[in-house]
Formats: sequence, structure tokens, C-alpha cells
Amino acid sequence: MKCSTKYIIIHTKNEKEILNITDKVEQALLESGIKEGLCLVNSMHITSSVFINDEESGLKKDFLDWLENLAPEKPDYKHHQTGESNADAHLKRTIMGREVVIAVTKGRLDFGPWEQIFYGEFDGKRDKRVLVKIIGE
Amino acid sequence: MKCSTKYIIIHTKNEKEILNITDKVEQALLESGIKEGLCLVNSMHITSSVFINDEESGLKKDFLDWLENLAPEKPDYKHHQTGESNADAHLKRTIMGREVVIAVTKGRLDFGPWEQIFYGEFDGKRDKRVLVKIIGE
Amino acid sequence: MKCSTKYIIIHTKNEKEILNITDKVEQALLESGIKEGLCLVNSMHITSSVFINDEESGLKKDFLDWLENLAPEKPDYKHHQTGESNADAHLKRTIMGREVVIAVTKGRLDFGPWEQIFYGEFDGKRDKRVLVKIIGE
Repeated sequence: MKCSTKYIIIHTKNEKEILNITDKVEQALLESGIKEGLCLVNSMHITSSVFINDEESGLKKDFLDWLENLAPEKPDYKHHQTGESNADAHLKRTIMGREVVIAVTKGRLDFGPWEQIFYGEFDGKRDKRVLVKIIGE
Repeated sequence: MKCSTKYIIIHTKNEKEILNITDKVEQALLESGIKEGLCLVNSMHITSSVFINDEESGLKKDFLDWLENLAPEKPDYKHHQTGESNADAHLKRTIMGREVVIAVTKGRLDFGPWEQIFYGEFDGKRDKRVLVKIIGE
Repeated sequence: MKCSTKYIIIHTKNEKEILNITDKVEQALLESGIKEGLCLVNSMHITSSVFINDEESGLKKDFLDWLENLAPEKPDYKHHQTGESNADAHLKRTIMGREVVIAVTKGRLDFGPWEQIFYGEFDGKRDKRVLVKIIGE
């Protein structure tokens, strides 16, 4: 069995932003030399997400608008009694998910025609990390 | 280490539908001969889901009603400026999730008493694929 | 390849409760002797969750308040025609997720600085089980 571990550094320009990281994960897979197995991609932070959806700029805006509606920025979260101001980011990340697990088949991410991997940042403008762990052979 | 890869074809009658696929995944596990490991089951599409919940027809209707409330069909999504009309399906699938990872123990899906695997379609009436990837020994 | 399977018994005092189970998962990893691989942690029940977020008591209350808003307790779910009264718990668990998959690196859960593992109970006061399956070497 082979194992590969890579950390991708991400620093978004905006506090809330959706970034396509498919190329970076494909690069990690190529470097691993693994041909068959599973690839875990997760945010190492609790106010951001890794998820799979469509590369379409309008849809990315729809996601951010929708999340703002379901988990709005507002002052009166109990979490803010600690001095924090990002409770909404914890909730938004929960909707979008922390991680994806992707099949590796014949050396490729085994994707349907439109699947792309995104990092969803909800409390950004700082260095963050995404972990890519691949196991297989 | 053994790896098994199966693609299940699904074609729902309705545009939005929840379908129990537990039997199909159990069949893929049986055919793999794997006794201990992990089983990934994911939709290969970005407007449908794979998730685990309860086989109860009322609950399946509750899920669809609830999703329509949280992520309604409506014309004014930005995604629709591309000519698409299914932005709600991308959002609904996000709530329900893309994938499940299931433990394989003693040759069986290691499930609690009520766990069943479902395919949730939100933009259907076309051939779709679910990927079952099992690794272990 | 090594495989380890542990079942953690959980019995919450309250019907709805969020419990930190990081120590229990770390213990299972230590006992497995696995140094590199993947660790699946999932609820074996369909009205509770396993998720990763922040250990902060205010935030845990925010999660429960937010879930009550998105998936309220109410009598008129179709699921309740079976005699059940917990449809809201099935929906709340869907938002929070069934499972997490965690990278194992150098014998440790490969976590960012704030990641902690939680069991989210939405229909509790009974014995429940969480499955920890670790594969690797």
C-alpha cells in the first residue's frame, strides 16, 4: 500500500470566496504515483469547506447568496460572546461540507463529466491549508 | 490490497426522486470479494446526491418538501443566465451530500439497524451514474 | 494493509446534544497501531451525526438553535403518519452530516489547529453507536 500526503496553501483575496482547486489535487495525485485507491481532500479549518460542484461563475455567486440567506452574518450568535465574529462562517461551512473523498481509477480522479473540486472560504484573507491524502497502490 | 470499481446506471422517472440503492451497493461489495476496508459511493453528477437515511415513504416526501423550501425552484438564479434552469438542483444536492463512505467489516456493509443508501435525483429523467469504489482486502 | 474496527457507545442526557468525541477516536487510532491511512468515523443511526468543528460552548448552542430554525420540530411531517415523531431529527442530521473521513499521518489524526470531532444527537436518551474504521499500515 502507498500513502501520499500533501498540504495546499490557500490565501483568498476576499473574506468569502469559492476557488477551483481541481488542478492542485490532480497534481498531488500525479506526484503520488498512485493508480488505484481513494483520495481525501479536506479543509484543515473550521470556517471553510472543500466540495464538488460545477465550474460556472454565476452558480458560484448563487452559492454565496444562498448561504448568506441560510446562515446570515449577524451580531447575536452566542459564539460572539467569546469575542469572535465569524459564527456564520462555521454554519456556512457546515452546509457546504468539510471534505470530499474521490475514487482514483487508472491513475485519474474518477469523475463524472462536470465534477470539479472547490475550496469554499467563509472567513478568509489569511493563509489556510487543504490536505490531500491518497492511499492505494 | 484489492480495489473494485463499479458504475451503477440510474434513470429516474421523475425529475426529483429518492431511490433506494442499498441492494446494488451490496451486490458490488459481494462481487468485489473484499472483506475488510472502505466503500465509497458517490454520484458522478452535480445535481444529484448519495446519502444514508431511513427507508420510509413519508420521510422521503418530507425530504423533497423540505429541500424545496430551503432551495426553491425559481427563475432568478445567476446560474440561469447561462441558459440553465437547474440551479435549485445544485443547491439541493449540496444539502443532501455527494457521497457516503461505508466501513466494510467481515464482508458486509457495517451498518446500524436502519441505515439504507439512497440516490437523490434533483434534475433527472436522463441516464446518470453512481460510482462504487471499494478498497481493502 | 491493516484494518481496525471499534464501536463507541454513546448515551446523551438530552434529546438534542453535541458531544466532543475526539479523545475516543484518538484512543481507537492508538490501539489500532496504524501510522498512515484513513480513519472513517460515522454515526450508525439516522437521527444523529458525526462532524468536525470547534470546541466552543456558545457555538454548540448556536448550532442547535440554527438547526431548529432550518429543520423545526413540528407535528405535520408525513413521516409522523407512521407513529414516529422525530422527522426533524432526520433532517437536522442531514445538515450536519453522517460521517467524517480523517487522514492518519505519522500515527496521528492529521488535523488543523482547531479541528475537533463531535457527535450530534437529535433524538437521544438511548444507547447509540459510533463506528471508527481505520485502514492503512
